[in-house]
Amino acid sequence: MPNRLTAVDAARRIAAGDLTSEALVRACLARIAARDAEVKAWCWIDPAQAIAAAREADTRRLLDAGKLGPLHGVPVGIKDIIDTADMPTQHNSRIFRGHRPARDAACVTILRAAGAVILGKTETVEFASHGRNPVTVNPHDFARTPGGSSSGSAAAVAADMVPLSFGTQTGGSIIRPGAFCGVYGFKPTHGLVSSEGAKPFSPTLDTIGWYARSAADLRLLADVFEVADGTTAPAPAAGSLRIGICRTEYWSRAEPGMRDAMATAERRLRAAGAQVEDVALGPALAALNDLKETVMRVEGRVAFLDLERARPDLLSPGIVKRMADARQRGHGALRDALDRAAVARIEFDRLAGAFDALLTPAANGEAPLGLTFTGDPIFNGLWTLLHAPCVTVPGLVGPAGLPIGLQLVAPRYRDARLLAVAETLGALLAGADATR
Amino acid sequence: MPNRLTAVDAARRIAAGDLTSEALVRACLARIAARDAEVKAWCWIDPAQAIAAAREADTRRLLDAGKLGPLHGVPVGIKDIIDTADMPTQHNSRIFRGHRPARDAACVTILRAAGAVILGKTETVEFASHGRNPVTVNPHDFARTPGGSSSGSAAAVAADMVPLSFGTQTGGSIIRPGAFCGVYGFKPTHGLVSSEGAKPFSPTLDTIGWYARSAADLRLLADVFEVADGTTAPAPAAGSLRIGICRTEYWSRAEPGMRDAMATAERRLRAAGAQVEDVALGPALAALNDLKETVMRVEGRVAFLDLERARPDLLSPGIVKRMADARQRGHGALRDALDRAAVARIEFDRLAGAFDALLTPAANGEAPLGLTFTGDPIFNGLWTLLHAPCVTVPGLVGPAGLPIGLQLVAPRYRDARLLAVAETLGALLAGADATR
Repeated sequence: MPNRLTAVDAARRIAAGDLTSEALVRACLARIAARDAEVKAWCWIDPAQAIAAAREADTRRLLDAGKLGPLHGVPVGIKDIIDTADMPTQHNSRIFRGHRPARDAACVTILRAAGAVILGKTETVEFASHGRNPVTVNPHDFARTPGGSSSGSAAAVAADMVPLSFGTQTGGSIIRPGAFCGVYGFKPTHGLVSSEGAKPFSPTLDTIGWYARSAADLRLLADVFEVADGTTAPAPAAGSLRIGICRTEYWSRAEPGMRDAMATAERRLRAAGAQVEDVALGPALAALNDLKETVMRVEGRVAFLDLERARPDLLSPGIVKRMADARQRGHGALRDALDRAAVARIEFDRLAGAFDALLTPAANGEAPLGLTFTGDPIFNGLWTLLHAPCVTVPGLVGPAGLPIGLQLVAPRYRDARLLAVAETLGALLAGADATR
Repeated sequence: MPNRLTAVDAARRIAAGDLTSEALVRACLARIAARDAEVKAWCWIDPAQAIAAAREADTRRLLDAGKLGPLHGVPVGIKDIIDTADMPTQHNSRIFRGHRPARDAACVTILRAAGAVILGKTETVEFASHGRNPVTVNPHDFARTPGGSSSGSAAAVAADMVPLSFGTQTGGSIIRPGAFCGVYGFKPTHGLVSSEGAKPFSPTLDTIGWYARSAADLRLLADVFEVADGTTAPAPAAGSLRIGICRTEYWSRAEPGMRDAMATAERRLRAAGAQVEDVALGPALAALNDLKETVMRVEGRVAFLDLERARPDLLSPGIVKRMADARQRGHGALRDALDRAAVARIEFDRLAGAFDALLTPAANGEAPLGLTFTGDPIFNGLWTLLHAPCVTVPGLVGPAGLPIGLQLVAPRYRDARLLAVAETLGALLAGADATR
């Protein structure tokens, strides 16, 4: 079933002529037809348009065989707060019902230039903020949330509907859904991927990232986006790694399944010969989630002011309420939070720079029951505020039989090394050795 | 001639029924018809559309007299890197020729919600970056640049074609054209005005701001955009002020006309009873323009990657060359510059917090001859990097008979106080006393 291929494998087969983009896209569409009535990952998809794009990719392959992009013919899902010129972009907002942007977001342009086929738009929390929740369910248990706000992107990749998808993270909106759905998720260092054409919420925090079913796929996209600064790094031997275990000040919120998963990962790393030690963030890195909340709310007041002025009737009360709270906090609170965060970044890079990566929970535990709560971002917000690159590494399972995701975090701009370490850890959690 | 009214006066007269928006817009259009063949401030304007919008404002005034926005019926010019749904947005780029955005930029939505009439689009440097220069000339001397990149916005206000206009600053693109054209320009604290729908160049630096012919007009817009955090501050008595004179490490680049202007301002402040003292930025605040250049180039590489991938043939060589340079510098240089800038912000706020404002050059001197060089941003970039609010205060004249602009700078989020001080200084430079 080509829809189960990783992007690396699919791109290789397409380039070699062993698979057509059309066959791959048709397999994805068939999977969506079979499963999306239940999973509800996609808010917009036009099979005929997707097939036409795939056919065009197949034609171009014949004409320009020597200069194919690294994603040639590979389908990608796009979170619906990211603009697409040939598909609606509705932000799960009543204000944007039927909205058609005139241009692609920067990341969509880069994907298309790399040869990707944009398959459709995926469900999101309203403006990836605090409004309406998506209808998407967790593909592993329809009674549970897939996490949010990049709900549809994580669920679509987890359900083998598409090999790659794009999301955004302001609090924990990439890493947490990745954990709940059991896929790899990557939030690059802040600022390395243009967020032009994605709906702003909190520019200090907003980061574009992506999902895949393999660490190598995350790296493929990192190369396309020049995130890795030209460096390449093969997956290191597990025995060569130095990993810091960072339980954070929020460890009491980790559920038993997450505690077991962290212990399992630590045990396997040690068994493989890795150096593993506990890392405490210390007082200079305390209360980062509180600072994140201040930044998010006060910047959110700026980001949504136009909608509050123009269409207050159609903006969800959760957003309006937080804007009022931000007015109470005032700009002085923002300055204080930004300055503390800037100093914390320097401190964190120094601390984490001694390790290949820090290992920390990607979420409290398994996906919670119900769709009204997309889960707690408490193990995510601090890293987002630190601008640190983060990866969800799947592979472990919790007491309810659902995925448990661990998170690797590195100093800013060490994205290439982090993704290489994620490949090694992913193989270790899956029981294999990535270095062969 | 209503086109010479300030925005405050025009809004007051329109609200009172002493002036119609249509009469005001027609006066602006007549001025544009008479002068813009030479000044070339506007890259797009449709008189019929502007008059229709003004008429609609006049009708709404009759129907909703009790709930008029603070800018009801007042025309505003918009720099052409800012999206408008009912006008083209072309960025002075061959890639965007004829481009029509589907939505207004956030600042345009807020302006319209406040009752403003969007008059047309103003000339800009390509993407407000390093590409094609605009055709706009300085309204005071057609052989000279109006400055850039917000060239058309500054020139249009200076030439009495419109009372208000919007621009953006990444280096010195608001403050410097304001100085060269002899108008007030305001760059708010970074992050207080949403830049959604304005073309990104360097998100750490990009800031939306505006031009007017009075300090009170700057404050009117600051209130509309909630920049002042709810505080109001009347123009203080000049004798109550404590002003720091900050010549910066770049003082040797100040021309004789600027040196005279700074001396004149200092003399008048002292004569009015203000406390005036020299302020040195010190080693912690040295070389900020070099850091700004690094941030701008490395972030510019991210911002323009989509266009480089999709349309390299139509992107100006100046931009492509700087992207190549940014790849050489690498992400490590960005991290270093961002961290130094963050620490410098804390240091600067402490230093400048002892004063009502710092007084510093807005540019090297008068507008240079020719249109190939929009002038040196050396007295601007450092403040942009510091995220400090800045105002161009006009009123003085240089040896060639052209405007010389001074600049007031304050710690972050002290925008309201800064604008009040600008009103006092402006009156002092114009020879009157703003406090009556």
